[in-house]
Amino acid sequence: MKLGRLNHVGVATPSLERAIAFWRDIMGAQIIREPFDMAGQGVRVCFVETPGADSTAGTQIELLEPLGETSPIAAFLAKNPQGGQHHLAFEVPDIAAAKDWFERQGKRVLGEPRLGAHGTLVFFVHPRDMGGVLTEIMETPKGAGH
Amino acid sequence: MKLGRLNHVGVATPSLERAIAFWRDIMGAQIIREPFDMAGQGVRVCFVETPGADSTAGTQIELLEPLGETSPIAAFLAKNPQGGQHHLAFEVPDIAAAKDWFERQGKRVLGEPRLGAHGTLVFFVHPRDMGGVLTEIMETPKGAGH
Repeated sequence: MKLGRLNHVGVATPSLERAIAFWRDIMGAQIIREPFDMAGQGVRVCFVETPGADSTAGTQIELLEPLGETSPIAAFLAKNPQGGQHHLAFEVPDIAAAKDWFERQGKRVLGEPRLGAHGTLVFFVHPRDMGGVLTEIMETPKGAGH
Repeated sequence: MKLGRLNHVGVATPSLERAIAFWRDIMGAQIIREPFDMAGQGVRVCFVETPGADSTAGTQIELLEPLGETSPIAAFLAKNPQGGQHHLAFEVPDIAAAKDWFERQGKRVLGEPRLGAHGTLVFFVHPRDMGGVLTEIMETPKGAGH
């Protein structure tokens, strides 16, 4: 496998509204996308754009607020009430080949690939197998970042 | 302030050697820089390059191993023995103006700007003031990422 683009850094927050205000007013983000629910994954999501080199699209900040009591973000916030860095998401050209790769390396893939926030298939790999980093692997969105 | 490029994601590790092997052999990183000590900050550092859009330089992964018992990374690893995401580093054009900005917003800047791993001045902002994210602000390296 070849390391792909760092598509986004997932950041959990107890309040998407306050987090959006923070990234807009304190960090100076120029482009903040419309928030939306991902009910199947128990999160409400908002992407903050960061500028890449030479006017390309940079790595996004994916703000994540829990949606419902069984949200995986709720468990994270119980340990980190203020929020914090939640996962790193890397792009791959072929999600099935990537799943096969990680499994063959003995890494615990968490469930089957499912539709992610960019409309492509994604899976997560257990942080204990990944140097403590919860890692999302996502198929590269068409036309994204280019 | 305008949000700058996400220069790197700091990832703490108990073993730089094992982390480098992981990023090379499992994640498939094509370019891994030579590790070096930053004795003043109590860390040994190794940068892993990730590809950006359109063949630009992407956001780096900054692997951090503690150097000495008083290393700030040692405290992080006591809580997270496997390692994990440690900080996000954003570029700014003017470090003094950025420090003034964050202080005027009531954010706790941790000490005076000092030379960072890219040879430019950097400072950190307290995670409790930043949505739980330890945030590094660094002056843009000349010619970097372009």
